[in-house]
Amino acid sequence: MDLSRIYESINEDLVRVEEALKTISEVDFPWLGQLLSQGLGRGGKRIRPALTLLAGKFYTYRFLFLMHMAMAIELMHTATLIHDDAIDKSDTRRGRPTIYKLWGVEPAILLGDYLFARAGVAVSDTKNNRCIRIFSETLMTISRGELNQYNNAFNINQGREEYLQRIFGKTASLFSLSTESGGILSSAPEESIQKLKNYGRELGIAFQIVDDILDFIGTEEELGKPAGSDLAQGTLTLPAMLLNERYPEDNPVKRLFQNRKDMKNVELAMDQIRNSSIVDECYQTAKEYCDRACQQIQDLPGDSSRQALIELADFVVKRKN
Amino acid sequence: MDLSRIYESINEDLVRVEEALKTISEVDFPWLGQLLSQGLGRGGKRIRPALTLLAGKFYTYRFLFLMHMAMAIELMHTATLIHDDAIDKSDTRRGRPTIYKLWGVEPAILLGDYLFARAGVAVSDTKNNRCIRIFSETLMTISRGELNQYNNAFNINQGREEYLQRIFGKTASLFSLSTESGGILSSAPEESIQKLKNYGRELGIAFQIVDDILDFIGTEEELGKPAGSDLAQGTLTLPAMLLNERYPEDNPVKRLFQNRKDMKNVELAMDQIRNSSIVDECYQTAKEYCDRACQQIQDLPGDSSRQALIELADFVVKRKN
Repeated sequence: MDLSRIYESINEDLVRVEEALKTISEVDFPWLGQLLSQGLGRGGKRIRPALTLLAGKFYTYRFLFLMHMAMAIELMHTATLIHDDAIDKSDTRRGRPTIYKLWGVEPAILLGDYLFARAGVAVSDTKNNRCIRIFSETLMTISRGELNQYNNAFNINQGREEYLQRIFGKTASLFSLSTESGGILSSAPEESIQKLKNYGRELGIAFQIVDDILDFIGTEEELGKPAGSDLAQGTLTLPAMLLNERYPEDNPVKRLFQNRKDMKNVELAMDQIRNSSIVDECYQTAKEYCDRACQQIQDLPGDSSRQALIELADFVVKRKN
Repeated sequence: MDLSRIYESINEDLVRVEEALKTISEVDFPWLGQLLSQGLGRGGKRIRPALTLLAGKFYTYRFLFLMHMAMAIELMHTATLIHDDAIDKSDTRRGRPTIYKLWGVEPAILLGDYLFARAGVAVSDTKNNRCIRIFSETLMTISRGELNQYNNAFNINQGREEYLQRIFGKTASLFSLSTESGGILSSAPEESIQKLKNYGRELGIAFQIVDDILDFIGTEEELGKPAGSDLAQGTLTLPAMLLNERYPEDNPVKRLFQNRKDMKNVELAMDQIRNSSIVDECYQTAKEYCDRACQQIQDLPGDSSRQALIELADFVVKRKN
């Protein structure tokens, strides 16, 4: 199942969002234009804008407002990635050099700030106070989550609860904003808004668990960045956590976290995880979150959007990058 | 004339804004609380919140909405300072160690992002779409201005026009937002909103010119940071520009910009500027902007708020830090 088939009912509108995003780079300050083109250039899977549009299809579909919201979310997402890359000193993302790599940390900070601001203008175009408010609240959750991740780098004593909270902040909060705002802007009843919001949250958690698995089993070509990046940065994700639980006495994750310079432990952990049932177990967990996501929306009206969201949940688990 | 006398009509409400800002640090994540206390700790002159409150006094004074706006502006301002300090690698601000100095660049980036988000929540509390929109537009202007400043570091070929545009982005845009939003939230007629906005812009330009003078003539104790910081970072401000215009063949600013490691030229430039009429000339320019600011508001109704804004313009030129 490829994405454009899942997106069938919104493909044309997604292209419009994409075109609107391109115009963001058209500014009368050539260097800024160049930074913006590079930063917004290759959009990835555009799952978040698709979620807003699909969630907006259950009731009164109002494309223009949904488009502004989808743009705002994508711009905020891009801004956080640009800042993350500067923080993690990442050279590549989605197979392209990062802003940090090309221009350094200072322009990365300022370009991110500019995009937060541009995102704020886009969300104000929805003219919907509730969307404007949850948009900023979500950015609070994300930054707080990133601070928490930074604060817990190379800390082996983190349990599932902390992991789930962290990936909620990092990913699921934005997925949840995407679907919740789609519901709000299409005048969905409150109960349906909550269901769409919950769908987004569960899907986002599944998405991030799969991301965390792929960081161990994917190739650099598939990932668009070196495999094992999370572990190398001291981020304890589910596969690494399970390895540490299985071999509490001694394991490469524990050794790496005790001596963060001993990078051969990253390779060792990857090998050990790949050759164990940990990958299956993590996929099972991701699948459970996807099932819960789909359960949330089973009573929503109409078939086609619900079907698309169900297929998207399936895609999230099966994707290779 | 001290500030608390100028602020007389709003002193109590300014204390309420201050108290509301303090509650921002009360979060259930101790490290974030610590970062927030440090970042928001010493508020400086609080000119921006005062401007919003004073501008909101000409028509229907609505304190709660003005308070949310004032908070939003102060939070955004603090966020940009935290990012600027990380970019400039500044160790001190307002006499205290910066977030960058205490915790490094990564927490500085993330704390700034958190504060942008918190500012977004505060501005959404105004429930005024126009204020929400100009708030984000102002952050676009500021980030763009900072990118421009970064891009033009150690570039000697910048004229007055570029300087004015830069300090508009850096400072006057936020002053102008403060007064414009005060007008909007108090239901001022459109013409008065424009006058208040223009007052803020002209005052902001004067304020930044004085800041740029003080960077050459102030002491580290007065400034709360080392004197000559702008020049050391390659920022061409009005006094340095005038020195370069007077001695186009050879001068310490030109020499520094040609060889940025030769830091003795910072001291030499400071000496030469202090012992010339350049300081007076810059003050004269600042004063002209203050006069223009005051002209803008001369027809606004009532006496006490107008008088306070006029005295504030006087204070801006006379201040020592």
